[in-house]
Amino acid sequence: MSKIYQHSTLAALMAKQMQGTTTIGELLTHGDTGIGTLDGVDGEVIILNGDVHQADEFGNVNHITDMDTKLPFATVHFASSDAIKLDLAPTDFASLADLQHGYHFTNNFAALELHGNFKDVLVRAAPKSTAPYPSLLEVAQKQPTFTAENISGTIVGYFAPELYQGTVAAGWHLHFLSDDHTFGGHLLETHTEQLQGTLELMSDFQLHLPIENEAFRDHTPMADGLKEGIQAAEGGH
Amino acid sequence: MSKIYQHSTLAALMAKQMQGTTTIGELLTHGDTGIGTLDGVDGEVIILNGDVHQADEFGNVNHITDMDTKLPFATVHFASSDAIKLDLAPTDFASLADLQHGYHFTNNFAALELHGNFKDVLVRAAPKSTAPYPSLLEVAQKQPTFTAENISGTIVGYFAPELYQGTVAAGWHLHFLSDDHTFGGHLLETHTEQLQGTLELMSDFQLHLPIENEAFRDHTPMADGLKEGIQAAEGGH
Repeated sequence: MSKIYQHSTLAALMAKQMQGTTTIGELLTHGDTGIGTLDGVDGEVIILNGDVHQADEFGNVNHITDMDTKLPFATVHFASSDAIKLDLAPTDFASLADLQHGYHFTNNFAALELHGNFKDVLVRAAPKSTAPYPSLLEVAQKQPTFTAENISGTIVGYFAPELYQGTVAAGWHLHFLSDDHTFGGHLLETHTEQLQGTLELMSDFQLHLPIENEAFRDHTPMADGLKEGIQAAEGGH
Repeated sequence: MSKIYQHSTLAALMAKQMQGTTTIGELLTHGDTGIGTLDGVDGEVIILNGDVHQADEFGNVNHITDMDTKLPFATVHFASSDAIKLDLAPTDFASLADLQHGYHFTNNFAALELHGNFKDVLVRAAPKSTAPYPSLLEVAQKQPTFTAENISGTIVGYFAPELYQGTVAAGWHLHFLSDDHTFGGHLLETHTEQLQGTLELMSDFQLHLPIENEAFRDHTPMADGLKEGIQAAEGGH
């Protein structure tokens, strides 16, 4: 049994449920590896070996050590020694999609972690919003992007089948963190050198919803255009 | 934390993945209460207090005691003493929808179990298919229905928000089993006397996918018409 644990949904963010409803401390009990965003959809969280960093909208990377730090949305798992070992020839973001066919995970969830040197990396970082929250689509339209060249770091994130679009971002949802912890974000494009890492096919996806939160309980879901909105907000990958 | 555990998806059944990929024994480790169907989408399974019955396409109810009995799709949970106690005035299926607004669970999963006397109960039972499997829609078009009047029994099943349509049957998905274990199936309509029971709001939904099954891993998901197909197959509720 290999399990991904997710707090809340992308559809809830789209419907303006951006208030932090879990904590880093709680999240780390469900995984030591993963991605997320902070209260108000504040930047891009990267969790590696239980160590938490946030790439913010100003291009900074902040080390998150306060276990009470809140998040509205996050996905984690415990990295397993059973994962498939990868040694990938130089590639780009689009070619990562080939993994899905090579390892037959069109219909299930997977976790990816890749480390090495990157010729270039293009990331974005969501700008923090405050209540009353805008939609994720509005946030997405004003989010800054950042580029680094000749940098070593780690890609970490998840694959989800199209069926789960809305619950998650279908396809790949990957974040990047440089080895020196100065550059990171939501991965939009990259050209890599040789990368080493792991691919883990997941049998279980545990979705946790913040049902103790009144705003979440009573929010009006987006009735139409959810998939198109997520596609626009999550930016092509 | 209150958790629903589901094996496979309705979308997989729609895409002809009807081979049994879990067992009753395995399932009971994740819950003592729930619903499902047997290998080949063979009838309607009702699990109450860890006791498993199957209402078949011939109008019979069979006691399932072989723990190796296979299922392609099932949903279970452990009934909790924390659940909301219900004492419902005479109602019908459509009025059960009011619960969703009264107890504010439009955006999360819930489990319902109601016991009492029923003026009438209309159920259907899926007919068993053998490989090569038809689509669930084809199965749905030829499934027999059964009616009982003045019968005592239990309604058990789940509510899921629209967001999860395809992963599950959105809205209510309820099965019925009579107290004397002679009548049951997938609940289509009913008019009830006073009913007593429980409603449990669920924070967690754990989806387990049969990734060790090659046919599941490699099947082609339905690209279009999934929601419409499920609506047709699951019959309005």
